[in-house]
Amino acid sequence: MRQAGRALPEFRELKRQHTFWDLCLDPELSARITLMPVEAFDVDAAIIFADLVSPLIETDLKFELVEGAGPKFVNPVDTPSRISAIPHMVSDRVAEALRTEVMLVKHRLPEQKALLGFVAAPFTLACYLIQGQASRDFEYAKAFGYKDPKAWDELLERLTSLLINYVEIQIDAGVEAIQVFDSWAGAVTVDYYRRFVKTYTHRLVKAIQSRGVPVIHFSTGSLHLLMDILEVKPNVIGLDWRVPLDLAINTISPDIAIQGNMDPSALLAGWKAAYEEALKILTIAGQRPGYIFSLGHGIYPQTDPRVIADLVSFVHNYR
Amino acid sequence: MRQAGRALPEFRELKRQHTFWDLCLDPELSARITLMPVEAFDVDAAIIFADLVSPLIETDLKFELVEGAGPKFVNPVDTPSRISAIPHMVSDRVAEALRTEVMLVKHRLPEQKALLGFVAAPFTLACYLIQGQASRDFEYAKAFGYKDPKAWDELLERLTSLLINYVEIQIDAGVEAIQVFDSWAGAVTVDYYRRFVKTYTHRLVKAIQSRGVPVIHFSTGSLHLLMDILEVKPNVIGLDWRVPLDLAINTISPDIAIQGNMDPSALLAGWKAAYEEALKILTIAGQRPGYIFSLGHGIYPQTDPRVIADLVSFVHNYR
Repeated sequence: MRQAGRALPEFRELKRQHTFWDLCLDPELSARITLMPVEAFDVDAAIIFADLVSPLIETDLKFELVEGAGPKFVNPVDTPSRISAIPHMVSDRVAEALRTEVMLVKHRLPEQKALLGFVAAPFTLACYLIQGQASRDFEYAKAFGYKDPKAWDELLERLTSLLINYVEIQIDAGVEAIQVFDSWAGAVTVDYYRRFVKTYTHRLVKAIQSRGVPVIHFSTGSLHLLMDILEVKPNVIGLDWRVPLDLAINTISPDIAIQGNMDPSALLAGWKAAYEEALKILTIAGQRPGYIFSLGHGIYPQTDPRVIADLVSFVHNYR
Repeated sequence: MRQAGRALPEFRELKRQHTFWDLCLDPELSARITLMPVEAFDVDAAIIFADLVSPLIETDLKFELVEGAGPKFVNPVDTPSRISAIPHMVSDRVAEALRTEVMLVKHRLPEQKALLGFVAAPFTLACYLIQGQASRDFEYAKAFGYKDPKAWDELLERLTSLLINYVEIQIDAGVEAIQVFDSWAGAVTVDYYRRFVKTYTHRLVKAIQSRGVPVIHFSTGSLHLLMDILEVKPNVIGLDWRVPLDLAINTISPDIAIQGNMDPSALLAGWKAAYEEALKILTIAGQRPGYIFSLGHGIYPQTDPRVIADLVSFVHNYR
C-alpha cells in the first residue's frame, strides 16, 4: 500500500511546512515519512519515500513539482540533442540523502517489517522526461521511439545506467527488495513494449537480482503486456484492479508471487465497500500461495485513515 | 478518425473566434466543423461535432469547458440528493441546434460518405458528473457506486433516459449509425462493469438498434472488459491500441465488425512511422472481413495534417 502516508494528517502537515525538495533531500524527514504508514496502519513493509523523478534532482534536467500534477520539466528531452544532458549517476547530494534515509529507516523499523526500495523503470522515467509532464497517454514520449529508434535506445541506455546506480545505493544501504515502477508501460502497444521498453526494464531487473535482491514489478493498465512483463522475470508482479485476479492466477507461474489488485477507489467509499472488495480478493487469492495483499495503485490522499487501519487489521486476521 | 478536425488550422481559427458554447449551439458552425475532416482528408464518414457532456448544455448542471482539460462542473453530482438535477431530456435549444446540425451536414455530405451520430455512454457521462472533471481513474465516480448502489442506479437510469432522448434527435434527423463513447469504462474492474455499467450501456445500445440504426461501441484501456462489452451487442466494436488486433480477431465473432486499433501517437512521429503502423494493422486485419480502419482514440491536435491526408490515401489504396 504505497503512499498510504498520503492519507495521514501528519504527512500533509509536513508537506505544508516544506517543499518537496526539502523532504527528499533531508534524510531525517524522508525517513519519518517512510515510517509513517507502518506506525499508523501496521502494514508489513515500508517503502522508501521518493518520487519517480528523484534520481534527476540536482542534475542539468531542471524540473519543478506541481501540486496534484507531478513533475514538470523546464526543458523536456524532446530532441536527440538533449540526450547528453542525462547523467549516468545521481548527484552526490541525492546519493548521500538516499543512503542516510535507508539507514535511518532500517535502524528504526521493527524487526519483522520489511524495507522496500523504490525506482522508476527506464520507460516510465523517459515518459516524464520526453513528455515534460504527466499525461494520460504520453503521446510525445511514444512518438519519440516511433520517430527515432536509435536515439530512443541511446536515451534509454543512459536512463538504465542512471537507475541502476540509484538502486545500487539503496541496496548497499540495506533495502530488502526493490519495487520497480513501470507505471505507464500500459500506454503502449504490445509491439512497442517488445521493441522499446522490455529490454531496459529487464536489464534493471537483472542488475537488482544479481545483488541477491528480489524485484517487485508494478505497472497499470497493462493486461495486454502481461505475458511480456513475465519475461522480464520479476520475483513478484504487482497488478492493478484491471487484471482479473483469477485470470492472473491461472496465467502466472507459481514461482512468481502476485501482489495488489484491489481498486483503491473502494476505500474512498468507506469501510463496507472496502471490506467487500478485500474479501472478494482474499477469497480468490486464497487458492494460491505467495499472494501479497495490496492495492492496485497508490492510495488516494482523501481516503479516511480509519478505513485503511481497519483494512490492514482485517487482512492480518483473515484465515 | 474522430476529431481529425482538431489538427486543422481552420478549426483552430474557429476555436479562437468562438466559445465552445457558440460552436455547439450554432448549427451552421457545428456543421462546418463536422464536414472539415471529410473535406480535408477524404475520410469515409463524418461524425457530428459535439462533446461528451453536450446533452447537459443549458440544464441546471452548470459546467465550463477548460481548454486542454475538458468539462468542469460547478456542482458535481457527488451526493444522492443532487441526482434530481439530472433532466430526462435535453434542452429545447440543444435539441434544435442538434437537429439542424445533422440536417445541414446530411445535405452537404457527398453521397458515398456516411454520417455518424455521437453520444456518451451513461457510465462515461456519470464519470464527469460525479468526479466534476476529467481524471485518470475517476475514483470518486467509482466510489459513488461502491458506496451507494441504489443511488447509483437512480443516477444511471436518469442519464440513460437523457442519452436516449439525445440519440433519438440524431436518428430522427438522419444519422446513419451512432458511435457510443464509453471512453472511461476501462477504469473499472470486471465485477464493477457487470454490476454498475453494462446494463445501462446495453439499454442505450438497444434503444438505438430498435430504430434500425447500427451502433459502434468505443472504449479505451478495456481489454479486461472485452467479453462483457461484446454482450452489450454493438454492431461494431472500436478498439484502442492496447488490444492486440490478432487476439481481437480470434475472440470477436464475425457478426461484429472491428474498428480502430492504431495508436495515434505514431502519426505524431511523421509519415514513416504512421505508414509502418498502418501497414502492420492492415496486414493483420486483411484476414477478416468487416474491419474498419481507424485510430484507437481521437487524433492529437498537434498532428501534421499532411500525415493524416497521406494515411487516408494509403488506406484507400491498400489492396
